[in-house]
Amino acid sequence: MDLLFLGTGAGIPAKLRNVTSIALKMLEERKTIWLFDCGEATQHQILHTSLKPRKIEKIFITHLHGDHIYGLPGLLGSRSFQAGHSELTVYGPKGIKEFIDVSLKVSETHLQYPLVIEEIVEGIVFEDDQFVVEAAVLEHGIHSFGYRITEKDRKGTLDVDKLRNDGIMPGPIYAKLKSGETVQLEDGRIINGNDYVGPDQKGKIITILGDTRFCENARNLAQNADILVHEATFSAENEELAFDYFHSTTKQAATIASEANVRTLCLTHISSRYGKDDWPQLVKEAKEVFPNSVIAHDFMEIKIK
Amino acid sequence: MDLLFLGTGAGIPAKLRNVTSIALKMLEERKTIWLFDCGEATQHQILHTSLKPRKIEKIFITHLHGDHIYGLPGLLGSRSFQAGHSELTVYGPKGIKEFIDVSLKVSETHLQYPLVIEEIVEGIVFEDDQFVVEAAVLEHGIHSFGYRITEKDRKGTLDVDKLRNDGIMPGPIYAKLKSGETVQLEDGRIINGNDYVGPDQKGKIITILGDTRFCENARNLAQNADILVHEATFSAENEELAFDYFHSTTKQAATIASEANVRTLCLTHISSRYGKDDWPQLVKEAKEVFPNSVIAHDFMEIKIK
Repeated sequence: MDLLFLGTGAGIPAKLRNVTSIALKMLEERKTIWLFDCGEATQHQILHTSLKPRKIEKIFITHLHGDHIYGLPGLLGSRSFQAGHSELTVYGPKGIKEFIDVSLKVSETHLQYPLVIEEIVEGIVFEDDQFVVEAAVLEHGIHSFGYRITEKDRKGTLDVDKLRNDGIMPGPIYAKLKSGETVQLEDGRIINGNDYVGPDQKGKIITILGDTRFCENARNLAQNADILVHEATFSAENEELAFDYFHSTTKQAATIASEANVRTLCLTHISSRYGKDDWPQLVKEAKEVFPNSVIAHDFMEIKIK
Repeated sequence: MDLLFLGTGAGIPAKLRNVTSIALKMLEERKTIWLFDCGEATQHQILHTSLKPRKIEKIFITHLHGDHIYGLPGLLGSRSFQAGHSELTVYGPKGIKEFIDVSLKVSETHLQYPLVIEEIVEGIVFEDDQFVVEAAVLEHGIHSFGYRITEKDRKGTLDVDKLRNDGIMPGPIYAKLKSGETVQLEDGRIINGNDYVGPDQKGKIITILGDTRFCENARNLAQNADILVHEATFSAENEELAFDYFHSTTKQAATIASEANVRTLCLTHISSRYGKDDWPQLVKEAKEVFPNSVIAHDFMEIKIK
């Protein structure tokens, strides 16, 4: 999986940072892409990447501020125009359905695919045999969710060399052994699949938070995550401003990362008051608290490993 | 006045042509800007120009298709954020108010200026002592308006040299003479202002049409215009496609320009099926019918003279 940052700015678009959107590329895992937020011109940003809108399977909206949702109607419409036929689900706070429905209705946009809109509450918002996604409410001026995406542990790989050494040749039996079944061979031997399967492969944990003050639920969602995407609208010295505007500082994001024992912290939602020359200072502030910090920029891609 | 094309593509954004928006710069005439349509990322395009969102006084929407309106909520919000305090009026078809109201409501966007939304019908939609704007319905799959902006004739300039030669020295009397009054001088002479004022300066006529098939009202709105902005989604050979999709070809736009006796035709709303190499052919097709044709591109500026 990879995280591809499509927009990393705060509030209004700027030349170097568009408003928020993050793509979680799961092309190997499920041949799809999940989006987190969809600020205006997200579809324009996508034009400069290899992402195919038709591969977007789910869009998780953290909160309804314009810089996180105004790109939705355009992206939904263009996905239809660009041969998107598979179902798409949008998850978000109450109000997201009215926004999408009215936008598509007045513009007479008729999607060529099934669109599902789920207005969520805290808890598990999606689960299948591969992933579970949990949401919890953060502290922002508007209802704002953070998402914790947990990949379920995958079965270990089958040790084919060991099987061959023991005279067990490839065939339908391999699938049974891989799933841990006990099987009797033609020669009478009874074989336990678990003896030939390596240890479970630990699934990844990705935490992507909406806009928030420094808060308890941020820490809960981030616990032991492989990557935490945390907003850092302000620099460390502007803690008061951050509080007043329901945002976080670099240092607060790093404190959450440290306390939650995450592997990598990625700062995003950077205010346009900070120019290119200020960015190294912002990440330095975070690194002082949590060394494995990076600052996102538009089109930055992070491999989750 | 100048027309600045912010988006000249059709349907969905492409790398070289954004979706529709046109700025009519009236900085000398009224220190403001009028926008015609506001497709997604219009505010992003504005970042690459000298336009100030706070100077936008009016936004005329031709029709409610997404590629003409999805940039509105973001632009309205950012104008507020960027110190826009003066009243802004949006004119458009029925439905525009619901779209704007719901977008601002769900995102909890509180504008710091008065926003007026006028859902229009055919006829005069705005008039003051400088300009009159008329709208008429075109032929599109959705209610689509064309706008005819007529600048009222301005009084001629006062011939100061002639006044001085006749021994009439500058003072408050000049304003009276300029407005055509008859005035008695201290020496007893009676002076008619009209003898010192040049002929009226003809106001300009600008016609900006929404998406449309070749139609009668396009011609009516364009009559004797200094500039006609007409969509040309398709090349001349695709007349049938144009009809089926309620659009026009290059040649049809040029025919309207010719029959309406306009001064300059500007083609826009170019389908992304036509790459950069095709554009000269498109304008050539128009020129064969109406020689003074140009094809718009993003950020093209035309002086209206």
